[in-house]
Amino acid sequence: MSEPLLVRAARREPVERTPVWFMRQAGRSLPEYRELRTRHSFWEVAREPELCAEVTLQPVRRHRVDAAVMFADIMTPIAAMGVDVQLVEGVGPVIESFDAARLRVPDVVAPELAEAIGIVRRELPEEKAVIGFCGAPFTVASYLLGRDFNAMKAMMYSEPDEWHALMGKLAECFSRYVREQVDAGADVIQLFDSWIGVLSPADYDEFVGGYSDQILEAVDAPTIHFGTGNRHLLDQWKGDVVGLDWRVPLDLLPERVVQGNLDPAVLLGPWERVEAATLDVLERARNVAGHVFNLGHGVLPSTDPGVLSQLTELVQERTVEARV
Amino acid sequence: MSEPLLVRAARREPVERTPVWFMRQAGRSLPEYRELRTRHSFWEVAREPELCAEVTLQPVRRHRVDAAVMFADIMTPIAAMGVDVQLVEGVGPVIESFDAARLRVPDVVAPELAEAIGIVRRELPEEKAVIGFCGAPFTVASYLLGRDFNAMKAMMYSEPDEWHALMGKLAECFSRYVREQVDAGADVIQLFDSWIGVLSPADYDEFVGGYSDQILEAVDAPTIHFGTGNRHLLDQWKGDVVGLDWRVPLDLLPERVVQGNLDPAVLLGPWERVEAATLDVLERARNVAGHVFNLGHGVLPSTDPGVLSQLTELVQERTVEARV
Repeated sequence: MSEPLLVRAARREPVERTPVWFMRQAGRSLPEYRELRTRHSFWEVAREPELCAEVTLQPVRRHRVDAAVMFADIMTPIAAMGVDVQLVEGVGPVIESFDAARLRVPDVVAPELAEAIGIVRRELPEEKAVIGFCGAPFTVASYLLGRDFNAMKAMMYSEPDEWHALMGKLAECFSRYVREQVDAGADVIQLFDSWIGVLSPADYDEFVGGYSDQILEAVDAPTIHFGTGNRHLLDQWKGDVVGLDWRVPLDLLPERVVQGNLDPAVLLGPWERVEAATLDVLERARNVAGHVFNLGHGVLPSTDPGVLSQLTELVQERTVEARV
Repeated sequence: MSEPLLVRAARREPVERTPVWFMRQAGRSLPEYRELRTRHSFWEVAREPELCAEVTLQPVRRHRVDAAVMFADIMTPIAAMGVDVQLVEGVGPVIESFDAARLRVPDVVAPELAEAIGIVRRELPEEKAVIGFCGAPFTVASYLLGRDFNAMKAMMYSEPDEWHALMGKLAECFSRYVREQVDAGADVIQLFDSWIGVLSPADYDEFVGGYSDQILEAVDAPTIHFGTGNRHLLDQWKGDVVGLDWRVPLDLLPERVVQGNLDPAVLLGPWERVEAATLDVLERARNVAGHVFNLGHGVLPSTDPGVLSQLTELVQERTVEARV
């Protein structure tokens, strides 16, 4: 019985070729997803295990990528904490009113997601990984607090007890959430911190880093830690795999296993540019301890799905050849 | 006749102490500015030389900073190119419709600003500098193109001729704009590139850098080149002074004269934190070729002006002592 390619790459074990998947591979770039959404709301898809599994599997069938990433929103565990989360098209999660004192950590965070993971794990061949994902406490808190990063910093500096209480509660709930996902069959957990780059290294260390680390340490499975605009924080970055955005060269951290890092906007340009940028990433991957091919951020909704399929094939072929 | 402190620091000449100013020191953080705005619109203030000079001088009187930065919007030269620019409170510049083909480069870009510079230069003591500023072509283009960075990259990759034509026209107009400011009495020019951090080093090199450099080279005066989230681009960064945001340690570039870099959000917290963070910046400044004290981005509108005055005094006192 062989373990998924992605799991072995994360553990620095030998792989036949580089595993490929794409952040946001499930969702709006796929016509079959958009078709399904004409009949079901986002939350219906996320909360009905059969639908959630179907949408999670769509990009694996179409692009033949090496991992299925569970279809969920970063606010999924927040909704389970008793907060009313609206997902506004083109805007993202919107919270009408938020009272930190009323946040509760549920015993079971996302039973429907766990059921969907079970379905996906059974459907997938064993060499493909199931990735559970979780928003990191800072980025999730930014949605709770109206995406005003300066107000968040003012809270850290002026009301540190309230800040740490909020972070502590989120970290406790999210630790439970990722454990549930691994217990249900997820092979890998990705912690996703989109907005972390606004913090200085000192503030990350004092107010945030420990809570993210707590979640990464909560599971006995490989973890991927992804952020954007965070080159200045990478010395403090944990996780078995470091997810790099497109701003940095892939071989910035030669001692680490890295994931990335093609600019998702490159896929909006001509194929020659996609191919050249991909080959550059693969060339740089020779200088690192391990590589998982991905974009440097999520698939843009306007991406041609044909380009994603072609890109998957390119990486899978080239990295097999490189082994010969 | 002695030249302004800031000019000498930029030229790596001896200074009695570190010059201090704050990006966005003029404007919404000051009650005297808000009072004046109850009677005049933004564009009235910007286009009436006496009012523009008054608003530019307000923070110099109040905080005793070492430079006056001309009160203008980064879209000022765009309005002169024939585009209708609306400034929406809390949103920023909004362009209803934009046709690159109709952009024209005027012979004289901003005569009212030049007149205001003359007034400010006459009012200020000679040791204080007048700073003219200019938005960089990429950031200005982002407002012209709806602040959709992925669409901008798609344009670079798929319509490179149109992209270069737009950048070329902006660079030509902005070069004229900064020359006018220096001719009118500005001692220093700051080029401001708020959104540049979304580009990879390769894209900056291929599509943007040359146009910013052209503007910096257009004047025979010291230049400050400022961007945010651009640590990955600093190897390609020109200008006599490198403006650093708060994400990086001030002594990241020991061979350069640097400006910065206290996180503006720190000023929303208790004074003890402001003082400690300021002393850390001053300590790191001992390791660089020259230092201009500033924040790592613009003054936040909710900043207590008393804190800015206190901070100015702290830096001016401490850096004199350091020379004794």
